[in-house]
Amino acid sequence: MLRAAIVGASGYTGGELARLLCNHPAATLTVATSRQYDGQPLSKVYPHLRDRVDLVCRDLGSTAITDQADLIFCAVPHKTAMDIVPSFLEAGKKVVDLSADFRLKDVAVYEEWYQPHSAAALIGEAVYGLPEVYRDEIRSARLVANPGCYPTSITLGLAPLMKADLVDPASIIIDSKSGTSGAGRAAQLGTLFCEVTDGFRPYKVGGLHRHIPEIEQNLSALAGTPVKVSFTPHLLPISRGILSTIYVNLNRRASLNEIFGLYQKKYGEEPFVRLLDPGSLPATQQVRGSNFCDISLNLDERTGRLIIVAALDNIVKGASGQAVQNMNLMCGFDEDAGLKQAPLFP
Amino acid sequence: MLRAAIVGASGYTGGELARLLCNHPAATLTVATSRQYDGQPLSKVYPHLRDRVDLVCRDLGSTAITDQADLIFCAVPHKTAMDIVPSFLEAGKKVVDLSADFRLKDVAVYEEWYQPHSAAALIGEAVYGLPEVYRDEIRSARLVANPGCYPTSITLGLAPLMKADLVDPASIIIDSKSGTSGAGRAAQLGTLFCEVTDGFRPYKVGGLHRHIPEIEQNLSALAGTPVKVSFTPHLLPISRGILSTIYVNLNRRASLNEIFGLYQKKYGEEPFVRLLDPGSLPATQQVRGSNFCDISLNLDERTGRLIIVAALDNIVKGASGQAVQNMNLMCGFDEDAGLKQAPLFP
Amino acid sequence: MLRAAIVGASGYTGGELARLLCNHPAATLTVATSRQYDGQPLSKVYPHLRDRVDLVCRDLGSTAITDQADLIFCAVPHKTAMDIVPSFLEAGKKVVDLSADFRLKDVAVYEEWYQPHSAAALIGEAVYGLPEVYRDEIRSARLVANPGCYPTSITLGLAPLMKADLVDPASIIIDSKSGTSGAGRAAQLGTLFCEVTDGFRPYKVGGLHRHIPEIEQNLSALAGTPVKVSFTPHLLPISRGILSTIYVNLNRRASLNEIFGLYQKKYGEEPFVRLLDPGSLPATQQVRGSNFCDISLNLDERTGRLIIVAALDNIVKGASGQAVQNMNLMCGFDEDAGLKQAPLFP
Amino acid sequence: MLRAAIVGASGYTGGELARLLCNHPAATLTVATSRQYDGQPLSKVYPHLRDRVDLVCRDLGSTAITDQADLIFCAVPHKTAMDIVPSFLEAGKKVVDLSADFRLKDVAVYEEWYQPHSAAALIGEAVYGLPEVYRDEIRSARLVANPGCYPTSITLGLAPLMKADLVDPASIIIDSKSGTSGAGRAAQLGTLFCEVTDGFRPYKVGGLHRHIPEIEQNLSALAGTPVKVSFTPHLLPISRGILSTIYVNLNRRASLNEIFGLYQKKYGEEPFVRLLDPGSLPATQQVRGSNFCDISLNLDERTGRLIIVAALDNIVKGASGQAVQNMNLMCGFDEDAGLKQAPLFP
Repeated sequence: MLRAAIVGASGYTGGELARLLCNHPAATLTVATSRQYDGQPLSKVYPHLRDRVDLVCRDLGSTAITDQADLIFCAVPHKTAMDIVPSFLEAGKKVVDLSADFRLKDVAVYEEWYQPHSAAALIGEAVYGLPEVYRDEIRSARLVANPGCYPTSITLGLAPLMKADLVDPASIIIDSKSGTSGAGRAAQLGTLFCEVTDGFRPYKVGGLHRHIPEIEQNLSALAGTPVKVSFTPHLLPISRGILSTIYVNLNRRASLNEIFGLYQKKYGEEPFVRLLDPGSLPATQQVRGSNFCDISLNLDERTGRLIIVAALDNIVKGASGQAVQNMNLMCGFDEDAGLKQAPLFP
Repeated sequence: MLRAAIVGASGYTGGELARLLCNHPAATLTVATSRQYDGQPLSKVYPHLRDRVDLVCRDLGSTAITDQADLIFCAVPHKTAMDIVPSFLEAGKKVVDLSADFRLKDVAVYEEWYQPHSAAALIGEAVYGLPEVYRDEIRSARLVANPGCYPTSITLGLAPLMKADLVDPASIIIDSKSGTSGAGRAAQLGTLFCEVTDGFRPYKVGGLHRHIPEIEQNLSALAGTPVKVSFTPHLLPISRGILSTIYVNLNRRASLNEIFGLYQKKYGEEPFVRLLDPGSLPATQQVRGSNFCDISLNLDERTGRLIIVAALDNIVKGASGQAVQNMNLMCGFDEDAGLKQAPLFP
Repeated sequence: MLRAAIVGASGYTGGELARLLCNHPAATLTVATSRQYDGQPLSKVYPHLRDRVDLVCRDLGSTAITDQADLIFCAVPHKTAMDIVPSFLEAGKKVVDLSADFRLKDVAVYEEWYQPHSAAALIGEAVYGLPEVYRDEIRSARLVANPGCYPTSITLGLAPLMKADLVDPASIIIDSKSGTSGAGRAAQLGTLFCEVTDGFRPYKVGGLHRHIPEIEQNLSALAGTPVKVSFTPHLLPISRGILSTIYVNLNRRASLNEIFGLYQKKYGEEPFVRLLDPGSLPATQQVRGSNFCDISLNLDERTGRLIIVAALDNIVKGASGQAVQNMNLMCGFDEDAGLKQAPLFP
Repeated sequence: MLRAAIVGASGYTGGELARLLCNHPAATLTVATSRQYDGQPLSKVYPHLRDRVDLVCRDLGSTAITDQADLIFCAVPHKTAMDIVPSFLEAGKKVVDLSADFRLKDVAVYEEWYQPHSAAALIGEAVYGLPEVYRDEIRSARLVANPGCYPTSITLGLAPLMKADLVDPASIIIDSKSGTSGAGRAAQLGTLFCEVTDGFRPYKVGGLHRHIPEIEQNLSALAGTPVKVSFTPHLLPISRGILSTIYVNLNRRASLNEIFGLYQKKYGEEPFVRLLDPGSLPATQQVRGSNFCDISLNLDERTGRLIIVAALDNIVKGASGQAVQNMNLMCGFDEDAGLKQAPLFP
């Protein structure tokens, strides 16, 4: 059994990693670190895990972690991640980093949107952990930069189209909606129940969200040409789920049939992308708790625009599930090991 | 006191009209019709109205209605409305029709999106009941076609911009999200609690929603040129609220300041439009239960796009509240009579 | 116009007082204090109040408050209240205190459940602000102790029965469920959206909740004999609303008819108690945003127990609405002034 | 692999059975019947099952079902179940019936609460499918009557106490709260999203709910003496989850320690009962999607009452999960086969 560690186990992605790993056939959770909950059972921090995860949170240094684990999920915030990841690699461990620290290939872009980078030397080596695009590179990676939740939905939604050079790169508008778990488990007024429930709001409107450079990097790489997008995130009164509605103008006339064929070719064998039949539409509740990304293609005959809708569970395919999928690839396990459960509905 | 009737009182817009009218200083509800609940107190159909509305639902013919009322709110579905509205006008009554039947000026367009029209002769006379655009015409109207919920949010969001000829008319993309009350009170699987809660989905993607011709009629009239839009509605797991995120390319460079000025000039004195300070963003929970439409302007410097966000309560400003506002104008009451309550939050 | 102040305007009860007062015919809000939001418009703290409340929060001392107000709503936490209320009274002002500080008549009981009392001399004078029981005393009070949310639902639910000496005083079991706004607007993990939504839990089970002595004081006074209750609160995934299910064994056989008569006699003329017809049951959504308390009586023929269900909006009849009702009585206004709006449903 | 059939696959319990079985190591779903959706893939009726369940719903007669399955989950309503179960048994198949038809041992009681019984001869043979109480009998049963959702939470909550003769049998009061999936997937006004969300209500108050005879049968059998309970169900604005708050007077003084010991002895080795440490309390969100029942014991020192709180997922441990657990026992599989997944939180 592979020994896996979660560094930063008290956040929602940490708790979700523990949930997914507790039934994994080839990996076992041996370490869960937390500064705040040092000494407390993880099942006290997350009572739903009682009788499933029997591990005490510890505030451990790098060596104590690498002594007990072969692969490390780094589930701490950006900035914190870059300070500890190098030591894990030096100790010969594999790392899946769920922060933003190793996602952007251009350190200048990273530093523009975040802050100075203390481990820029690793950026080149880090593989962007989107298996549907970089499967082979992930297989041999030491360090995987697990994608952001919004970028996963958007990149999967657009990848076949970008590759086929069918999109006017100046036309892309992405209207995304996310469940509240994306804001994390920190106590703050804006994510209190009474502030969020029975309501809906956008945030960071006008090109301000930090996922924008990641989205643009992905789409530009796929298209082979620089792409700029309009991206507006919104906060949904649900726990889990992201749904992105993506509007593009096509470069040339193309039938829905032709486009559907492109997607089918790309995703037909993918274990976690469900391409919906024309006329079917995704819903976040249909992917809840699963590692699926559901994608639907729609052509607006009146305006000629293509409207792509992609839905996933932001803590699973948008974070911890994708991280486990990356671990599976890095370690030679079945890609869907530990990730076979069906979505929970209703 | 003006005597008001609600024809079709058992739907959510009917119930909301009763709620708004029960404290109206110049109008009193004298008739509530319902086929299904004939003989039942309205406060049994809507128990929240107990001790506030003391009226029994009746399945009444046209004459019985016009005998007891001076103004009639027609809250029945389209098609049904066109069959009864003429008789109300013939009896010399004023009518606010909440259906789609008299909103579209071109009967051919109406018949393309709905079904044959049986009262097309009245279309010319009907005034589109958006006071912020047609206040004067409403004042002297006999028949007001109360706007749709989505079109209200979108038209208010775009009106000053369209008038100023600042928008590339081919560029408009509208991503709207609505609470579930918009689907009405009929029992259907798709709006069951378990199907909607903790979830989110789009519907009628790709230019299929019947509000599209209404939106385009409004925007074309304001712009003085034909406008085609991409419009995608989504279903929110909330009862009340619509939020439209509107993306436009500008015709020419314009600062946010300049655009804000246009909106301030247009809406500065409006009783029910709240133009938010730059940097503030609307939320459906901040207009809940009120007749306000909150509007925010955002310029994406990176792409040059303007992003307008408009939020309202779909049953109030998007339906029954706007209907009362129209009644107030038609009858010479204070425009905000019966509509002064603040939103309910949390 | 009476000049009213809210001390502690940033909490949910403070925001709700502002909402209710903004349309009050005889009172106007002149002061809103907040330490945290000093200098900020109340409509920035509570954006739903934009265009309805035009007041800046200030961190004011006692004299500055009493200079500008005739009546003071004290919406700060217990302990803080007792330290400032005396100065308001000394300045000749009327006070409605929404904290627990002046509710318990026995200072020893207060100090057992809370902490030492610094203004015990005022306890005797303070009138318990439940108009349905102490209306006359409230009319002439300087200091009204506004009841707790749970105790209001429970005392109204049981009052006629306790007075009629029909209840076995050892048999009372109260199972209450509250919306999350009862926990206040402070940022804490337990009331984050993701922790509360799509879930349900009890808290302080086993006689631990601080409302117990208040409930027992009320019921004992009504019964004229000491009463001890079992009281279990639960947290609902809703913003507003309390529903208490109350189980009692009767002292003697009594028909539902007889008991219904008692309640009808007591509450028939009450403006804010709606006694439901036998067979009808309350729901929190039917009182949302209103000052109503809905009560239903049910006799379990199989066990002989009476089951009383009482529902109210915890921020209105359970806090701010009742406070306004008390102000109305203290100032000789119509008792329902500013409180006439119907509940908001859906 | 055992071949399993779901008769009545379109309801929520049917869909949940399909979800649980799709990863079962020893059983495979071979038949899903539905009259309404005859000819449609189950993954169209339940899109969350796409790529997990590949089966078309059929409207099949008894023989067609028994030809293709070894064990049949009967997920149709009561009355319908009794008409088809005999034929399955005659064909030599095992049956887990999720309806109420074979739960009550006394046919007269059944007919009092339901309607005439057409297969009363089987009542004697049917085993009540609560493994924690009837494990051995279930192992050798042909026909298992899967318990109701409320009775499961209540019986598990009280079993050790009833057996120990510690409860005053006239004192039991049960206040239960259920998620809306318990009402099924039929389109009806009362379970529309807008009617349920942001609200809470009791129903069937006063000894009217059909689960009462089942609860009393269970508790009476455990106590060895007739037990009558007060039982009040409530509707929660959540999809999944039941939480029962149970109040009992003890027969004699007993410490919480002593009682906790009883429960620990009974449930210490149970795979799906989690006895919480004293001071911990259950929450429905901590069992969501899992087969766990969480139980907490609380002694109210002030009144001497014991308050037991039990929580489970009504569609899993309260229906389909328990049915799979019963199948596992009947077929000699590991009892937790297919049921190992951790709850989904948040």
